[in-house]
Amino acid sequence: MEPTTAMQYTPTERTQVRRRSVRGVYDKQQVHSILDEGFVCHVGFVAEGQPVVIPTAYARAGEQIYLHGSPASRLMKGQQELDLCLTVTLVDALVLARSAFHTSINYRSVVVYGRARHVTDVIEKWQALRSFTNHVIHGRWEQIKQPTEQELKATSVLALPLEEVSAKIRTGPPVDDEEDYALPVWGGVVPLLQTFGIPVPDGRVLQGIAVPQLKR
Amino acid sequence: MEPTTAMQYTPTERTQVRRRSVRGVYDKQQVHSILDEGFVCHVGFVAEGQPVVIPTAYARAGEQIYLHGSPASRLMKGQQELDLCLTVTLVDALVLARSAFHTSINYRSVVVYGRARHVTDVIEKWQALRSFTNHVIHGRWEQIKQPTEQELKATSVLALPLEEVSAKIRTGPPVDDEEDYALPVWGGVVPLLQTFGIPVPDGRVLQGIAVPQLKR
Repeated sequence: MEPTTAMQYTPTERTQVRRRSVRGVYDKQQVHSILDEGFVCHVGFVAEGQPVVIPTAYARAGEQIYLHGSPASRLMKGQQELDLCLTVTLVDALVLARSAFHTSINYRSVVVYGRARHVTDVIEKWQALRSFTNHVIHGRWEQIKQPTEQELKATSVLALPLEEVSAKIRTGPPVDDEEDYALPVWGGVVPLLQTFGIPVPDGRVLQGIAVPQLKR
Repeated sequence: MEPTTAMQYTPTERTQVRRRSVRGVYDKQQVHSILDEGFVCHVGFVAEGQPVVIPTAYARAGEQIYLHGSPASRLMKGQQELDLCLTVTLVDALVLARSAFHTSINYRSVVVYGRARHVTDVIEKWQALRSFTNHVIHGRWEQIKQPTEQELKATSVLALPLEEVSAKIRTGPPVDDEEDYALPVWGGVVPLLQTFGIPVPDGRVLQGIAVPQLKR
């Protein structure tokens, strides 16, 4: 099946991957898959002419990315729309070449540019908060105490549309200069794995309550 | 021993951690330890008034952070100094509270603001490139082919001083509202571990060459 426009994000002046363009990806399914695997993004904005980059949790729902935080935080405190650059990076492996120059990293990253709006609709806000919780542990929202009216007021939510989006992906072994393969140096990739460790209960878990199922 | 100014970064208007200020850290040793554990940062700058956030490798040498890339890349292409915000985030654990509102993440992050300069001194540039390689695998620079003159020209290096710096750290169990501890919900932390997988040779490794020692 030929990909249609609807299955791809349209590159713009700033999302067109120029450097090592073979790594540029606009396929929606691949972009979604990277966004759904990560759960901490780095969000950039301009404050008084200066760049600010903050790590924060996020969740995707369809073609929207949601962020949340205290209304007093730097990201949330303005009431107007805010130009953001939101980046999610998954580091997959060290790429150990035989030369320093070709040493690299296998990674998958997504960059989203756009104007974020404050979510004021109560139902959309509620669904966004649900998606943060269930993004990491499916079904947990339905088990825990959902926000009170006061907690809802104490949480701001931003929505950033997935419109101006690109992914960059590097996979595979190092690419050494032909003559360097003769060097007595190990070459290949070393995977980096992110796994869950053994859950540590906080000492106040009621008897008979099971540890939640983790998908990672 | 009382901490002296030299052991701490001095908070500025934009590095003073206001929100949940208990998590703000200015201790140089702790900042260095976070920077030395990570190896991919997210660097933000302003391009035509808009924020841009790029993931990239980095290394610390003393009170400098070095970045490198192609001279044609957006980060490197200008010859003038560039205002950056560089953020390194280590995600340590999911913090599973009994309420959505108190659900959190244990993390350690460092934010560095400053003006990056292009490294033109050949010795400093050489040492910076060495630090990228040896930051992840100690001693590898001494084993592999070091850059040729042409490769050196094809690599730009930026230095960002560690002057305007803060760290934010969250550790420990969830903090639930007292009445919520009665809920039949598991509460505690689930560690997130980053480990190396089994190295995958690229099929052209000479006989008798050992897999490099990995410190992570």
